[in-house]
Amino acid sequence: MSTGFFGKLSPIRYEGAASTNPLAYRFYNPDELVLGKRMEEHLRFAVCYWHTFCWQGNDPFGAATFERPWFGDGMSAARMKADVAFEMFSLLGVPYFSFHDLDIRPEGDTFAESAYRLHAMADYFQQKMEETGVGLLWGTANLFSQRRFMTGAATNPDPAVFAYAAATVKHCLDVTHQLKGANYVLWGGREGYETLLNTDLKRELDQYGRFLNLVVEHKHKLGFTGTILIEPKPQEPSKHQYDFDVATVYGFLKRYGLEQEVKVNIEVGHAVLAGHTFEHEVALANALDIFGSIDANRNDYQSGWDTDQFPNNVPEMALAYYYILQGGGFNKGGTNFDSKLRRQSLDPEDLLIGHIGGMDTCARALKSAAKLLEDKSLSAPLEQRYAGWKDAEAQAMLKGERSLEQIAAVVEAQNLNPQPRSGQQELLENIVNRYV
Amino acid sequence: MSTGFFGKLSPIRYEGAASTNPLAYRFYNPDELVLGKRMEEHLRFAVCYWHTFCWQGNDPFGAATFERPWFGDGMSAARMKADVAFEMFSLLGVPYFSFHDLDIRPEGDTFAESAYRLHAMADYFQQKMEETGVGLLWGTANLFSQRRFMTGAATNPDPAVFAYAAATVKHCLDVTHQLKGANYVLWGGREGYETLLNTDLKRELDQYGRFLNLVVEHKHKLGFTGTILIEPKPQEPSKHQYDFDVATVYGFLKRYGLEQEVKVNIEVGHAVLAGHTFEHEVALANALDIFGSIDANRNDYQSGWDTDQFPNNVPEMALAYYYILQGGGFNKGGTNFDSKLRRQSLDPEDLLIGHIGGMDTCARALKSAAKLLEDKSLSAPLEQRYAGWKDAEAQAMLKGERSLEQIAAVVEAQNLNPQPRSGQQELLENIVNRYV
Amino acid sequence: MSTGFFGKLSPIRYEGAASTNPLAYRFYNPDELVLGKRMEEHLRFAVCYWHTFCWQGNDPFGAATFERPWFGDGMSAARMKADVAFEMFSLLGVPYFSFHDLDIRPEGDTFAESAYRLHAMADYFQQKMEETGVGLLWGTANLFSQRRFMTGAATNPDPAVFAYAAATVKHCLDVTHQLKGANYVLWGGREGYETLLNTDLKRELDQYGRFLNLVVEHKHKLGFTGTILIEPKPQEPSKHQYDFDVATVYGFLKRYGLEQEVKVNIEVGHAVLAGHTFEHEVALANALDIFGSIDANRNDYQSGWDTDQFPNNVPEMALAYYYILQGGGFNKGGTNFDSKLRRQSLDPEDLLIGHIGGMDTCARALKSAAKLLEDKSLSAPLEQRYAGWKDAEAQAMLKGERSLEQIAAVVEAQNLNPQPRSGQQELLENIVNRYV
Amino acid sequence: MSTGFFGKLSPIRYEGAASTNPLAYRFYNPDELVLGKRMEEHLRFAVCYWHTFCWQGNDPFGAATFERPWFGDGMSAARMKADVAFEMFSLLGVPYFSFHDLDIRPEGDTFAESAYRLHAMADYFQQKMEETGVGLLWGTANLFSQRRFMTGAATNPDPAVFAYAAATVKHCLDVTHQLKGANYVLWGGREGYETLLNTDLKRELDQYGRFLNLVVEHKHKLGFTGTILIEPKPQEPSKHQYDFDVATVYGFLKRYGLEQEVKVNIEVGHAVLAGHTFEHEVALANALDIFGSIDANRNDYQSGWDTDQFPNNVPEMALAYYYILQGGGFNKGGTNFDSKLRRQSLDPEDLLIGHIGGMDTCARALKSAAKLLEDKSLSAPLEQRYAGWKDAEAQAMLKGERSLEQIAAVVEAQNLNPQPRSGQQELLENIVNRYV
Repeated sequence: MSTGFFGKLSPIRYEGAASTNPLAYRFYNPDELVLGKRMEEHLRFAVCYWHTFCWQGNDPFGAATFERPWFGDGMSAARMKADVAFEMFSLLGVPYFSFHDLDIRPEGDTFAESAYRLHAMADYFQQKMEETGVGLLWGTANLFSQRRFMTGAATNPDPAVFAYAAATVKHCLDVTHQLKGANYVLWGGREGYETLLNTDLKRELDQYGRFLNLVVEHKHKLGFTGTILIEPKPQEPSKHQYDFDVATVYGFLKRYGLEQEVKVNIEVGHAVLAGHTFEHEVALANALDIFGSIDANRNDYQSGWDTDQFPNNVPEMALAYYYILQGGGFNKGGTNFDSKLRRQSLDPEDLLIGHIGGMDTCARALKSAAKLLEDKSLSAPLEQRYAGWKDAEAQAMLKGERSLEQIAAVVEAQNLNPQPRSGQQELLENIVNRYV
Repeated sequence: MSTGFFGKLSPIRYEGAASTNPLAYRFYNPDELVLGKRMEEHLRFAVCYWHTFCWQGNDPFGAATFERPWFGDGMSAARMKADVAFEMFSLLGVPYFSFHDLDIRPEGDTFAESAYRLHAMADYFQQKMEETGVGLLWGTANLFSQRRFMTGAATNPDPAVFAYAAATVKHCLDVTHQLKGANYVLWGGREGYETLLNTDLKRELDQYGRFLNLVVEHKHKLGFTGTILIEPKPQEPSKHQYDFDVATVYGFLKRYGLEQEVKVNIEVGHAVLAGHTFEHEVALANALDIFGSIDANRNDYQSGWDTDQFPNNVPEMALAYYYILQGGGFNKGGTNFDSKLRRQSLDPEDLLIGHIGGMDTCARALKSAAKLLEDKSLSAPLEQRYAGWKDAEAQAMLKGERSLEQIAAVVEAQNLNPQPRSGQQELLENIVNRYV
Repeated sequence: MSTGFFGKLSPIRYEGAASTNPLAYRFYNPDELVLGKRMEEHLRFAVCYWHTFCWQGNDPFGAATFERPWFGDGMSAARMKADVAFEMFSLLGVPYFSFHDLDIRPEGDTFAESAYRLHAMADYFQQKMEETGVGLLWGTANLFSQRRFMTGAATNPDPAVFAYAAATVKHCLDVTHQLKGANYVLWGGREGYETLLNTDLKRELDQYGRFLNLVVEHKHKLGFTGTILIEPKPQEPSKHQYDFDVATVYGFLKRYGLEQEVKVNIEVGHAVLAGHTFEHEVALANALDIFGSIDANRNDYQSGWDTDQFPNNVPEMALAYYYILQGGGFNKGGTNFDSKLRRQSLDPEDLLIGHIGGMDTCARALKSAAKLLEDKSLSAPLEQRYAGWKDAEAQAMLKGERSLEQIAAVVEAQNLNPQPRSGQQELLENIVNRYV
Repeated sequence: MSTGFFGKLSPIRYEGAASTNPLAYRFYNPDELVLGKRMEEHLRFAVCYWHTFCWQGNDPFGAATFERPWFGDGMSAARMKADVAFEMFSLLGVPYFSFHDLDIRPEGDTFAESAYRLHAMADYFQQKMEETGVGLLWGTANLFSQRRFMTGAATNPDPAVFAYAAATVKHCLDVTHQLKGANYVLWGGREGYETLLNTDLKRELDQYGRFLNLVVEHKHKLGFTGTILIEPKPQEPSKHQYDFDVATVYGFLKRYGLEQEVKVNIEVGHAVLAGHTFEHEVALANALDIFGSIDANRNDYQSGWDTDQFPNNVPEMALAYYYILQGGGFNKGGTNFDSKLRRQSLDPEDLLIGHIGGMDTCARALKSAAKLLEDKSLSAPLEQRYAGWKDAEAQAMLKGERSLEQIAAVVEAQNLNPQPRSGQQELLENIVNRYV
């Protein structure tokens, strides 16, 4: 039975590129085969509960702008929110959603009450998931909003907060397991610092390493088969976040022996805040073998904070999907929209329209990327560019069979004077533009 | 015998804070004891050959502005440059200098000729070092200026360039060993990429890992006792540099088994370009046990490129030295000025004045930092802030003796509800201001 | 009678640089003469009501952290807030405060009720001001927080919002006049856009120009003798703010004929967000004759948003006060702290400590700047540098008495080949460091 | 007769979107009608001499990478460069080119010799232009590369440099007039400062204002009918450039009475460095009635300096052309590529490929923009959004026929409480994506 929130809307359908219907897909066609796989299975879209149903439109200089019937504190508001959420998932036809504990249940007066409510809502979700066929891409714990976490959760100077956070994750992971989540995510929103002056960096990194190991140990105990993911971000809310970017997370995982256990959930906007392109972060995660999943929300390039906008630039997303496909595509991961409507986008329809635009951008980008890969338009020149390394002597250098002295002797003996070759960046960029 | 370049200048002396003599030190007093050690031994200043004697004042939109008698291509120009350089080291009274191979010898027509010239100049230096008592903080190879390195040295798609670079480093390390260098530095100026479209990230990282292992192996073969250092930088000249920041370098070292062998040389300006404070990079290197040495040149906060200016903000440098001292101070490392004069600073005196200002800034900062450390004004509240972790149960969590389930059980049983405590950032900032 | 909020604190006193009392001034000594004027009259400190008493510690990822007894919606809470505020003004001994309408009175159900409450609180303030001797630096209207202003106030596509905003400013200006405010400020928090796609730039600029003229006309009608100020900011909350920086505001004022009527209130952090130094903005406002007042809160250089921190870097503030003094110092303007405590700084004492640190930083900076000015250490070389322009022929060029052809004829006739002279930046920076 | 530089290449032809020929246009079809005008006349492409024929591939950390037969100092090298240049213009089929004096003639030993050479090359160009039909979009003087300009040209502390610069512009404008240039550009490469410490802002602005007036006066004397353009840039090479952005230039023009005489030449990358989108700068220039021409080279979003890359993102350029068309399209202005090849793009073909990609990006963007405009897909909702202002009372407010008091009275009388309406940003973004 409809909640009525979206009026008389019928499910969003694929109508093709020529459609001008704002409530139709122009590119997202779930059953269309791309590289022999259904588009839906490639993209694995998820709608995030947080920004979509919980954020009220406030910003650092402004109060709430959205007025939703489910804004409120009780369990019945939480259920109404869930009703509308699953209604929207069905209207959009997305296969997954994702959530924080705080998004789905009101905070209780005690830890036990909060936990109880979480489990109650999980049961409510389980039923809705069965009814709608929508699955859970990942669950997570909000360890950053409540004032007890203001100085960090795992990295708090107070061990009681560490314990509280650990207990919270325990319940969230249990619930994610119950709902057959494909992944469990940790975002270190307050795992970082505001000022070094009151921070013991080494101690906090060790706390964080232990915390993550606790989570991995519990996962195995549970038999949870999803992937544990860390979501890198360089700053905001903290001045410095410990999970700065993919390279930083990799070093952290290596330090605490977790590089086989934990992968990364990469967000477009966070990559940009860290001074990278999104495709860099994806390609690096592939190279380091820790690619897990993505949050497809972009940043405004002129804003220095996390704007979490729906993706709308096809050429940019096409490069990202190119590297995702090159790495084998999503396994347990998917394309999550941790996007939020602009705070001026007040209408229920805006919620759908934002997702439709984002999904179409991704679908179009995926198709471009698949074709680019299939044609080997980038990979063939790349292969050629490094071809010299197939040479036996080059391989010997690379495998550690030559010393610096031996190499120097060869250079001198052969009077080596290597000549540079064109990098052809403009040509390659033009080639990409043939596909987008 | 004087070259006459600096006219009739006599050596720069310490005259105390009240001096208004632009050619005197107001704070740098080499023999003054700070925390029981001579200031000179704490700071271990080095003048870098590159910007000081080789840079001609050109920028992307402008030609050379400096006119030095030693600008030219032959070996006699190289010797004149060395004569003036050591004269300046003596005038300033700095204990160390640092150089790239390209700074000190003209490029030859062949690799062998370039190498021959390098060794010839090293012999010339050796004599000057004996005469003046000036030591070598570090040597390095310029693997980024010549067009053969335009696509990388160790990370070049062409193995011949890898070999050429390896052979170059062999000679540079040999010469650094001969001159009793305290360290050997690698800066990955072109180890990175301009566009991912023509780059195989994984392959290049592996090449780079091998290259660095070659260097370490040669070091041990030579019996060189200096430290091998990597200098992180996020970008420029490359769009993306593989040695982005301290955390990235740490992950790289872990990946290639080098974390016990290689440390970092951190530059203020590079830290800023990477989105960090300099003291963050120092503190992180301490935490990860890879702190080596520093380049003390700052960036202009409003410029998005590497401006390499002399340090002039005492409060900022004081925090950096605070973390350096807290980590035990420099061992083999030191305070190198990879600074360059502004291109409008044409006069010989400007060369001295830039260094005097930088050295005084550092000396004043060191004294502040030492006092701050001695008084435990920051460390005592820090110790107190984490005191809860001394508790046995907290230690058990940290040591891995508790599971997530056990922690959750305690949280629920004790109905834990940890209350936040003030982070006192403003108070701590005010305390620091008592010292600077 | 004390509210008890600050416990048994006595007024903050000047104890001199050697004091280690966190609740004493080390540099701010109101009666000390600087350049023949009392320090208090130079600095004209103001505490802002907004961040200090109204902000609850929330950020985009976190809920409130502060718990103040006056948080609440009614008029009695508003009065308690005022009681504590004036208590704090007295404890600190600041001569001024500043406020937004929304800070001091709860929003009413109707415009009329809001206005009524504003006037009621103004009366309450008037009495407190008389009792304490604290004056009003400026008043302003909050035209950005409430959802009705989400798309702009003066620049709203809906003329009803323009009218609502105009009516709001009318009451705020009346009240500022009643309280003998030295200035009236407009901050264009939502005067800008989120996306050009729904924005008519030209139309909105015209609306804004008219709005500002309305304010100026009302000021003259009232006989208000304070200065009307605009506070530039490049972005946040809007993606683009119309009052981007000082140069942009100047062009706007010229366009709408207001350059004699309106001046700028420059905030340190806003200058940094716009890609400038603060001293640049001050110097430019002086050059354009529109300098009015300052907000002394700095930004974190590594954060891309407005962090509004208390100033703590003396060398930076010294340069700012140098240009302020050079322009003749404050006339009606002053040094306002639109700073906010870090959200982890929970304790009542933190409120005082933040202001003490900021005031001491400014006082120390002022003294440095005054000495620098008095000694002509910067101005004498500057005068010398441009001395060539005193020449009659140079003056003729500058006054428009020569044509391009005439100048070219002279250049050719004299075979002019001007030689560059050192800009001496390092020397000048070292000189500044003698004063800070 | 061919120089042979480009081998046996034949002119680049339009082959349509399906072409995979890297040396063909896929979208640029000069004779295709767009909104009733030939594409060539809409876009008015120009190749810039500077980066394309003079830049040698050096960067702050690297020496030249390009090896061109015309690199050298004499007049015969200058003529060979011109021969290749016009050959390339013809191969590409571009209607315009643009140049700096320094690009086209070697610097002489005296001012007179430099001027003589400029005129000699202008004569050589004139003949080539007649032969090929290529026109001049604009000429300009390089007042930033030679060391005499290191401290500014018009804004130099030395009036002799002002005179030298003025004389230089005189000849450049004469030559631009001779070659029937459509515009004359001024770029203030060194009109700014490195440090405020040695800069008299007010004085320098006045010098600059006078200089620009001299140029305008000479233009009228000559009878030159082209537009005088200023090219805004916020920084680089100077730390601060006086022509920061469009808004700053507008204020400057107003201050010196030039807003009817001078327009702006907006560069994509400069807009980004100033913290804007390119389309913002175009739309603002339209609103202020100073839009002139564009440089279509983009910046890398992750680099903090001017990367001058060929445009390759169609959605971004489409928005720019949308605002250009909305303002009536180019009059005298055009689409100049001040782009440079990546320094690794060594081959002659790369020069063509870079331009082909850039031209195709612009052509495709233009077509999208034209359709978007024709369909009123953005302008109709925009019109609707501001429709309330057609109301008589709203118009009365806007025209200055109501006072603040009158407006307040109406707000209170009507108990006005305006309700916000959705800004529909996501919907509008989706609509744009239908066109790109």
